[in-house]
Amino acid sequence: MRAVLVKAAALAIAGLLWPAPAGAAHPSHSEPAVQVGILLFDGVQIIDFAAPYEVFGQAGFGVATVSAVGRPVTTAMGLQVTPDHGFADAPSFDVLLVPGGDTGDAERDEALLGFVRGRAASARHVLSVRTGSHILAATGLLDGLRATTFHRALPSLAADYPAVEVVRDVRWMDNGAIVTSAGLSSGTDAALHIVGKERGADAASTVAMHLEYDWRPEDGFVRTRMADRHLPDLGRVKWPDRTRFDRVVNTGDTRSWRLRYRVSSDAAAEELMSLAVEALDRMEGWTRDSADSTRDWVGAVEGRRLRMTIGMTAAGPRAHWLDVELEAMPELEDDERG
Amino acid sequence: MRAVLVKAAALAIAGLLWPAPAGAAHPSHSEPAVQVGILLFDGVQIIDFAAPYEVFGQAGFGVATVSAVGRPVTTAMGLQVTPDHGFADAPSFDVLLVPGGDTGDAERDEALLGFVRGRAASARHVLSVRTGSHILAATGLLDGLRATTFHRALPSLAADYPAVEVVRDVRWMDNGAIVTSAGLSSGTDAALHIVGKERGADAASTVAMHLEYDWRPEDGFVRTRMADRHLPDLGRVKWPDRTRFDRVVNTGDTRSWRLRYRVSSDAAAEELMSLAVEALDRMEGWTRDSADSTRDWVGAVEGRRLRMTIGMTAAGPRAHWLDVELEAMPELEDDERG
Repeated sequence: MRAVLVKAAALAIAGLLWPAPAGAAHPSHSEPAVQVGILLFDGVQIIDFAAPYEVFGQAGFGVATVSAVGRPVTTAMGLQVTPDHGFADAPSFDVLLVPGGDTGDAERDEALLGFVRGRAASARHVLSVRTGSHILAATGLLDGLRATTFHRALPSLAADYPAVEVVRDVRWMDNGAIVTSAGLSSGTDAALHIVGKERGADAASTVAMHLEYDWRPEDGFVRTRMADRHLPDLGRVKWPDRTRFDRVVNTGDTRSWRLRYRVSSDAAAEELMSLAVEALDRMEGWTRDSADSTRDWVGAVEGRRLRMTIGMTAAGPRAHWLDVELEAMPELEDDERG
Repeated sequence: MRAVLVKAAALAIAGLLWPAPAGAAHPSHSEPAVQVGILLFDGVQIIDFAAPYEVFGQAGFGVATVSAVGRPVTTAMGLQVTPDHGFADAPSFDVLLVPGGDTGDAERDEALLGFVRGRAASARHVLSVRTGSHILAATGLLDGLRATTFHRALPSLAADYPAVEVVRDVRWMDNGAIVTSAGLSSGTDAALHIVGKERGADAASTVAMHLEYDWRPEDGFVRTRMADRHLPDLGRVKWPDRTRFDRVVNTGDTRSWRLRYRVSSDAAAEELMSLAVEALDRMEGWTRDSADSTRDWVGAVEGRRLRMTIGMTAAGPRAHWLDVELEAMPELEDDERG
């Protein structure tokens, strides 16, 4: 990165431009404040509520937190937060935020679901982040609506709530009054989207700029569009008993993907490889790249031709690295674009 | 956005790939846990500590929070958080995170500064987010080092801490053991950078993917590179007494910028405009686009030729909209690239 020393110039630019309220990108004072209520529960994911809290606060919205009886909650990673209200004394809100996290208990908590239903009825916007959509689904508010969630929770949302039309390939799904967002950092974008709905796109962009956040409402990152969507389901491989997988790498982009597992097993690398090869040979849509290859397969998924390579190397006593690489073939990639 | 219904396919993809630990992108169990300590104080900015907390937690690091006596702190936007430790009983940390916010008191708090100095001495990495760099500067730890901060706080960092070489145009500044980041959401990137330093780039990228976050370590968004860096300082305009400015729009990109203020004043639009025009005419490097224009100026700043347009329109009784638009001239923009 190019870094420019600003020490000498500091005083010259100190005033920035015209006098302005310090810090935040507040809307004009003639507009009434928007009140946001954030649902908290034990196991709530920090970033799911904290990032929208910051966005709404910077937009000049009032933000309050609510838990069942207003007692402190412990987040999924152990942060202890004391809410402003319990369900009984919480006011009504213009925006109700339902974050995700470990939502299993929340999805079965009738008092919590009743609170969400009640406050949703009087709110202009309801926003879920990540698996907060599972809580919304449990209230019935998403019945017949299209909704999204954390990329790894898409299947369980569909399985647990068949009345919900689960969608992938979006960073958030806007149903009018109800917006559901994808995983974790998507909540920042969905909150900016709500700011835009309340105050206009300029206001949302102004908040993003203040947050030094690269907001791309039209062309943003969508996790479910990454290349691992094309990975075949190898859950069918019958690994030897007590074989343990720790995923250490799981990354890529829309065209390629890399996975690395540390495999702890009494079995030798050759045995593990042959089990994987057997399973891959049974995969529909995938064939070996050549008859004698036991590392490379080619497949066709969603109109794309792909190559997958697997490999096993030593990682220590009773431990192997299992590497999986997936690549969309470039020439067809180009065809698709044309 | 293209949205694909996944309901039917949900069960088919439920297993994803090989069995893996649920959720997070944990590093291999053979590596020792990294312990992160987060400094909290009244007025701390939520996103400054919450986003790195999530990043470090998803990386499998242990995270603990610390305040002066371990009592609850109230963040800049009113969230109440109960830390895990007080200064006296806090363990040592591998990573010390110093978030920003309303840091005025913290910068003068000798107990807090002493704690930061002590824990920094035994940490492998010290990371400040936003105006957390001002706290680090107050400890003396940044003396002679290059550091950055929230885009609006760059001048005050330079003015208050002359021993620090303040840099702009970076999302974070890595001095080896000490990393300072720019504003708010930059903390996410700087925390990922620390994960990368501890566990390698693949691990950092894996965490970003899990967070559904579009991490661009080499080519990311840097607020201070946006076009408003070229705006002239109009702090010199002598506005009539009791004129009040509320900034409602402040956005753009690297080539253009738009500002809108709601101006509340007894003075008429014509009087305000002529005061602004007078001040702009005195600006070094800027000239009127044509002799009779009172709306358009052209300027040359940092090797770029720019056009600035100002306008004042009615916004209501005793209120005007003041619009400022800045545009880098396209033909010269192209020259620069060549």
